[in-house]
Amino acid sequence: MNSLNIPADSVGLVETRTFTFAHPPRELRLVSGKTLGPVTLSYETYGELNADCSNAILVLHALSGSAHAAGFNSPEDQYPGWWDYYIGPGKAFDTNKYFVISSNVVGGCTGSTGPASINPETGREYGLEFPIVTIQDMVNAQWHLVRHLGIRRLLAVTGGSMGGMQALQWAISYPEMVQSVIALASSSSLSAQGIAFNEVARQAIFRDPHFNGGNYYHGQKPDDGLSLARMIGHITYLSDKLMHERFGRRLKNQELPAFNFSSEFMVETYLHHQGIKFVNRFDANSYLYITKAIDYFDLKADYNGSLVSAFENVVSDFLIISFTSDWLYPSEQSVEIVKALRTNGKNVVYTEIESDFGHDTFLLDDERTQRNIHNFLRSEFEKAR
Amino acid sequence: MNSLNIPADSVGLVETRTFTFAHPPRELRLVSGKTLGPVTLSYETYGELNADCSNAILVLHALSGSAHAAGFNSPEDQYPGWWDYYIGPGKAFDTNKYFVISSNVVGGCTGSTGPASINPETGREYGLEFPIVTIQDMVNAQWHLVRHLGIRRLLAVTGGSMGGMQALQWAISYPEMVQSVIALASSSSLSAQGIAFNEVARQAIFRDPHFNGGNYYHGQKPDDGLSLARMIGHITYLSDKLMHERFGRRLKNQELPAFNFSSEFMVETYLHHQGIKFVNRFDANSYLYITKAIDYFDLKADYNGSLVSAFENVVSDFLIISFTSDWLYPSEQSVEIVKALRTNGKNVVYTEIESDFGHDTFLLDDERTQRNIHNFLRSEFEKAR
Repeated sequence: MNSLNIPADSVGLVETRTFTFAHPPRELRLVSGKTLGPVTLSYETYGELNADCSNAILVLHALSGSAHAAGFNSPEDQYPGWWDYYIGPGKAFDTNKYFVISSNVVGGCTGSTGPASINPETGREYGLEFPIVTIQDMVNAQWHLVRHLGIRRLLAVTGGSMGGMQALQWAISYPEMVQSVIALASSSSLSAQGIAFNEVARQAIFRDPHFNGGNYYHGQKPDDGLSLARMIGHITYLSDKLMHERFGRRLKNQELPAFNFSSEFMVETYLHHQGIKFVNRFDANSYLYITKAIDYFDLKADYNGSLVSAFENVVSDFLIISFTSDWLYPSEQSVEIVKALRTNGKNVVYTEIESDFGHDTFLLDDERTQRNIHNFLRSEFEKAR
Repeated sequence: MNSLNIPADSVGLVETRTFTFAHPPRELRLVSGKTLGPVTLSYETYGELNADCSNAILVLHALSGSAHAAGFNSPEDQYPGWWDYYIGPGKAFDTNKYFVISSNVVGGCTGSTGPASINPETGREYGLEFPIVTIQDMVNAQWHLVRHLGIRRLLAVTGGSMGGMQALQWAISYPEMVQSVIALASSSSLSAQGIAFNEVARQAIFRDPHFNGGNYYHGQKPDDGLSLARMIGHITYLSDKLMHERFGRRLKNQELPAFNFSSEFMVETYLHHQGIKFVNRFDANSYLYITKAIDYFDLKADYNGSLVSAFENVVSDFLIISFTSDWLYPSEQSVEIVKALRTNGKNVVYTEIESDFGHDTFLLDDERTQRNIHNFLRSEFEKAR
């Protein structure tokens, strides 16, 4: 990309910033009982905060995301941020109208405090000495960032997958600060099958000879393990039907089978490519910590087994979106959230969107998803003023 | 188990035998164009061959199976063979009536020629010098065994999953020898998603530091990789619903999370247990070769993209059984087989059985499956006499 080629509906060149807080002795208290500090969060903002601070939207990413949700960090960037289809002038999260904050998570590896950060107590990277963090810990850290930006109330908190989990947690932990939640392809807890996939992905990392108990920052990294974890994950992000349509049983470069163990089916090549790309931008330890945070997330368990109780004190409005072919966070899990909210008399819009693209649909340029968000936000914004 | 405790409906104590053929220079010609010889197949038989040789049934196993399909190999065995629910006096494959042959596959590791066998050309284990074998190669090898046992026509060829693939291939490769096929949880080709799962499982093995290019027979074995491959496989053998009901989000030994990376969810413990058990009974190289054979199996591709053409010269009757919650070999794939057979005017009984147990249902004590097989076989046996 060249700066001259930045599309008109892009937020353009953006800078990832950081905010550091929880300096000892006022550290962040974690759900586990441990403490963490200082804590840095990386974030980006798009658009302008209005005079009455009523147009702020917090965007939260999924497992492998970062604060870089829209625009380009440099004129040389080939691709924009992960939710560029949704954030920009005239887009669903219209940056002509709204002030969008995109926050990274604690435990991450793209500018925020995580296992690759230096542990102030030892002067070395935390590695596995980093404390286990939960979705609630991520949200508690983001609270500091939002207050630092001078915002007392968010027009919306939004995200897909783990981002949706954070958005739900925001509405529960800080009800007075969240006017609305937009949760896509999300869940109040991961299924047993989802935990199983996360565990085999973690095992791929643990079993890499270069993992070295998590202390690999000054030598070879566990790239084989991390890329295998990513390959496993990618199978679960796509639907069977999409894989069939996009790759089928086609071979890469030949008509006939190679009769060896080379990666010859197109679906194999695709997965290998995803795995290799990933190790250049992600830290294996962060993959462990973030998948574990997803596994632990369980709003029902937090409230004695009742999702209805979990949402009792929530005052937000909700837009819940699920996708028909998403088998990792299936629609039933969104419906369960919708029912629990309605039992509490909350305002909920629920849309199940027909899609063959599986869990990853929330990242794609889907017009129906965009229209749903646009309409919901417009009505919330009118309410706010 | 104690020999005194062998149940009355068991085939009792059985011996796994072997048959060796294709001695050089008359080696087995493989689909790849390579040759293999000598070839040994391990097998077991249950019941007695009748005078007119009209009661022989060939049972073929799935990915991780062996020739030991029923009964006990020793009085100390804790568990019977893998299809003991189905094979025995009075059972679906009634050994009072039928002569049941259970054959292992070439490429396997339980008595048949495979990568762990000695390559006569080098005097060392084949390892990755073992040639790639296909489902058709497995069937061509079994043909030698069946003829060795003096059988010119099989009353039925049967199996689940990869066993069903072999049974279909038998009907196509040796039509005059196969009176009927009973294929459970099977397919005429694996889906792109299925190939993807097999490839990540293979990569788990390839990336184990002890794999050593397949030459690990005199040192440490790639147990970490093989057990991880098995864990990945096991996720696909069960349904999401079964995992939810059996394990849910329950923790193993505690009420509260451990806040570390121990295997604490019951579903994690289950998978780890399956992985560890597997490395004691299976060879990692065989896992590579057999999954590759499954990936390559494609009856449509063999006949210019037409499954109807594939079954054109078949003369067998068919019982096709699929299971509602099987997402690895979904019912649509069985329906596709049924349609292609019916287009050819073949006799087909198709049953989709309601089950929450996923792909592995064909291995379980399922009364409806047993009744379907029993009735189909009785009618085929009447026809044969």
